[in-house]
Amino acid sequence: MAAAITLSGRGRGLSSPNPNVGCIVVRDGHVVGAGWTQAGGRPHAEAQALAQACDRAAGATAYVTLEPCFHLSPRGPRCADLLARARLARIVVAAQDPDPRTDGQSIAFLRAQGIVVETGLLAAEARDAMAGFFLRQTTGRPHVTLKLAVSLDGCIALADGRSRWITSAAARAHTHVERARHDAILVGSGTVRADAPRLDVRLPGLESRAPRRVMLGRSDPPDGWESITHPGAIADLSHVDHLLVEGGAQTAAAFLRADLVDRLLLYRAPILVGTGMAAIGDIGLLSLDAAHGHWRAIDTRMLGPDRLEVYGRIRNA
Amino acid sequence: MAAAITLSGRGRGLSSPNPNVGCIVVRDGHVVGAGWTQAGGRPHAEAQALAQACDRAAGATAYVTLEPCFHLSPRGPRCADLLARARLARIVVAAQDPDPRTDGQSIAFLRAQGIVVETGLLAAEARDAMAGFFLRQTTGRPHVTLKLAVSLDGCIALADGRSRWITSAAARAHTHVERARHDAILVGSGTVRADAPRLDVRLPGLESRAPRRVMLGRSDPPDGWESITHPGAIADLSHVDHLLVEGGAQTAAAFLRADLVDRLLLYRAPILVGTGMAAIGDIGLLSLDAAHGHWRAIDTRMLGPDRLEVYGRIRNA
Repeated sequence: MAAAITLSGRGRGLSSPNPNVGCIVVRDGHVVGAGWTQAGGRPHAEAQALAQACDRAAGATAYVTLEPCFHLSPRGPRCADLLARARLARIVVAAQDPDPRTDGQSIAFLRAQGIVVETGLLAAEARDAMAGFFLRQTTGRPHVTLKLAVSLDGCIALADGRSRWITSAAARAHTHVERARHDAILVGSGTVRADAPRLDVRLPGLESRAPRRVMLGRSDPPDGWESITHPGAIADLSHVDHLLVEGGAQTAAAFLRADLVDRLLLYRAPILVGTGMAAIGDIGLLSLDAAHGHWRAIDTRMLGPDRLEVYGRIRNA
Repeated sequence: MAAAITLSGRGRGLSSPNPNVGCIVVRDGHVVGAGWTQAGGRPHAEAQALAQACDRAAGATAYVTLEPCFHLSPRGPRCADLLARARLARIVVAAQDPDPRTDGQSIAFLRAQGIVVETGLLAAEARDAMAGFFLRQTTGRPHVTLKLAVSLDGCIALADGRSRWITSAAARAHTHVERARHDAILVGSGTVRADAPRLDVRLPGLESRAPRRVMLGRSDPPDGWESITHPGAIADLSHVDHLLVEGGAQTAAAFLRADLVDRLLLYRAPILVGTGMAAIGDIGLLSLDAAHGHWRAIDTRMLGPDRLEVYGRIRNA
């Protein structure tokens, strides 16, 4: 299942409007099929894995990160039928599909077909890998990552706005990988005016993975850009499950004030700036007590001389 | 030798005016004596280790982090004589003593006595452990650590100055361990006026290790405090080999501008403050290019929810 979750990552930022699912078919200890939801959502992971497996699917076990779809669509066959027809012996499902058109119905259907169906294996990890899809289903909005490239003392630029470069080439390359994993990138109108950022993916082989560009602000966005006037409007961005917010300080503060940031991505360079531009504007904090308990460290690693720190928003469900 | 270097740490902040040396005597694979420079500088590490070893020192090997002292002092015997009289077979020295009154003379003297003397084992690590002594010898000033307790976005307080608490109890306890390892702590006059900090060591068993307190500023310091008017005057603080600078932002900036910070100790809490008080005032930075290449990551660890990051100043000797 861990391998299926890793595979599912290949569809992130591409698979919308469908969740980025991963699927692996195993027979006699050998992987005979592997798939992930393709660009635009079709084929589904299961369809791809079963097509690879062919006859070898009979009697095999399928590991799938999300309950297979039960609802009929003009865009392709439903996975519940595909899996039943493949005469699998066993299906292991990580997370149940919260979409009311499926929501347990595939599991019941496949069991009724005589297939052993187990659920819950690495469910939390699978939900994390499809965080945008789950947030859309439960709250109606995309998953938001706020990215900041900062000095040790929390500056994103000199006082006059110069910000090239805080971080190293290794850290910037990692940012481009993150871009490729998102459906859209958002920056504020101030950043658009000051930097006219390209926000593309400048990595060999991933150039085609540039996400959609969204501006926060009331002015007209540049050609090819979408725009929203307030952070809450991200719910209206169609086919965006994972949104990357890249700046600047006022935009970061607006999303934090609205409590719409799920993940912080801090690229921290081993430099001191002193009186520079702060990373984040006014977030309406009234006391230090109120600042605690919101973020937990998820991951850290070195990227050249810089340190990447990843924090997740603690939400009491 | 690694064990001797660890032992030498026990004398840090206590052994001045003598360097914090560590010494271990090994015979037939067993440690028969161990010592470190005691409070006020006497007894020396070698004298302590040899006293423990007694007759067992004959034919043994001594590991000592610094070349034994050669110069005569009214405060006690010179270690070169003690070691020669103990009829050791072999002495392993990490770092040669830069003090012109010794500076290789003990090594030559002990060799002339028929003892095998080897040098250079873990020399860099030993010099790090006695960084203050070596800096005093080469530049005439103490080793300076700048400590900052900051949020993820680099704030040390709310905009109105409230700073209790940015970091957790675990991080604050670690700060107190660091205090015990320094001869003196320095804060700016603004911090003295605003917080009247005690700067003591509030850890069971270490209460007596409170360092001397130094204020940077022109006003009169509180009772029991010393004061200096500019960062360069740290060279005039007698018997201070290791100085801890604890704030605030203007004092940090003054030491950074003067390039007098050797080590950064960042306690980083998983909180965001937004428009708060920046950690560091104006350090006179003119371009981002000029900010790079000065600091390298030495250590990092979690202290409860907070992350400790230690950086060392890169100096091209």
